[in-house]
Amino acid sequence: MRLRNIPGAEEALREYPTFVDNPAGMKGRWKERFGNDHPIHIEIGCGKGRFINTLAERHPDINFIAIELKAEVVLRAAQRTEKREIPNLAFVQYNAALLPDLFGAEEVSRIYLNFSDPWPKTRHAKRRLTYASFLNTYKQVLKKNGEIHLKTDNEKLFEFSLNQFSNERFQLRNITFDLHQSALAEENVMTEYEERFSSRGQRIYRTEAIFRS
Amino acid sequence: MRLRNIPGAEEALREYPTFVDNPAGMKGRWKERFGNDHPIHIEIGCGKGRFINTLAERHPDINFIAIELKAEVVLRAAQRTEKREIPNLAFVQYNAALLPDLFGAEEVSRIYLNFSDPWPKTRHAKRRLTYASFLNTYKQVLKKNGEIHLKTDNEKLFEFSLNQFSNERFQLRNITFDLHQSALAEENVMTEYEERFSSRGQRIYRTEAIFRS
Repeated sequence: MRLRNIPGAEEALREYPTFVDNPAGMKGRWKERFGNDHPIHIEIGCGKGRFINTLAERHPDINFIAIELKAEVVLRAAQRTEKREIPNLAFVQYNAALLPDLFGAEEVSRIYLNFSDPWPKTRHAKRRLTYASFLNTYKQVLKKNGEIHLKTDNEKLFEFSLNQFSNERFQLRNITFDLHQSALAEENVMTEYEERFSSRGQRIYRTEAIFRS
Repeated sequence: MRLRNIPGAEEALREYPTFVDNPAGMKGRWKERFGNDHPIHIEIGCGKGRFINTLAERHPDINFIAIELKAEVVLRAAQRTEKREIPNLAFVQYNAALLPDLFGAEEVSRIYLNFSDPWPKTRHAKRRLTYASFLNTYKQVLKKNGEIHLKTDNEKLFEFSLNQFSNERFQLRNITFDLHQSALAEENVMTEYEERFSSRGQRIYRTEAIFRS
């Protein structure tokens, strides 16, 4: 997600109780932050934040963490929370390639990848969040039978991701080539991007990938 | 594949040396028929037979068996062989749901499913050749790490098949949403149906599914 640089974004973030200033310090200890041992679901790349905020409201028994590289993007997503304390929601500014800095083995139950950058050029394939090296990073923090939920409007990224998941021995489940016309539509929480593009007739692809061992 | 009924098709078939009259009698003993223990690849539903004939020509070190329910269809495919003996090719008229009648455990290395009937109505899902019950039938005859290669022009059947394969613990590989534009196009052998429909701009979907245990 592209946003203009917001001067002082990092400082501004510290005013939000949902923002975690030193997330690497929480590795293996997130249950202390949340005050419970509920499952942890993370979103990598949180956009404007509607998705993770909605999930946090709907599922008070799950702890949600949004991880986003750019301070400006985290700030915009955190601003939805209006400086309220939300006990099961946290925002983190960090590089997803370094996820094991933030979480211990088996600390994460689910990872959401929503409309990640497709990096269409072959020479940029390694930057895609479903490239094998990323999948192996996710394995380092996922519980056994933990899940990755992927949504995208980019068919090529979807095709690429199905292959990468399979090659890395994730088990695929609930693959759909047209989410909004599928049985999964009812419980789907749309991102801002998703609402905009699907209203123009763009199909949304989705799969779940289960970490079997 | 629909063909008008050809009177005497079953009798006519017996004139073709590639036709196997009593295939259930070959169960576990196909290497005797072929006179070697080369891998056995089968095609379920052989259409007009170009695919299996071409593969048999290209790969003399593999034994190919086409299995087709309807005598008229088998006859038409066998007619391509012009009553020649082709040492690594056999035609069988049989119901694929009863595959374990024809093959012993681990007797088959690969199964081709080309442009199978999509049975689009939900109430007919059990008739699709990738329905779970069929996949479990295939497991009874496939070698460990044996493969199913699926091609279809029907997106819904493709989506359904990916899910069925995954649910039944096959590992997917080389998934492509547009075979003829992919790196796999070069070695692809087109069926008659495939040539006709792809020349009209219809995309061809393809996957491999590996039987891991």
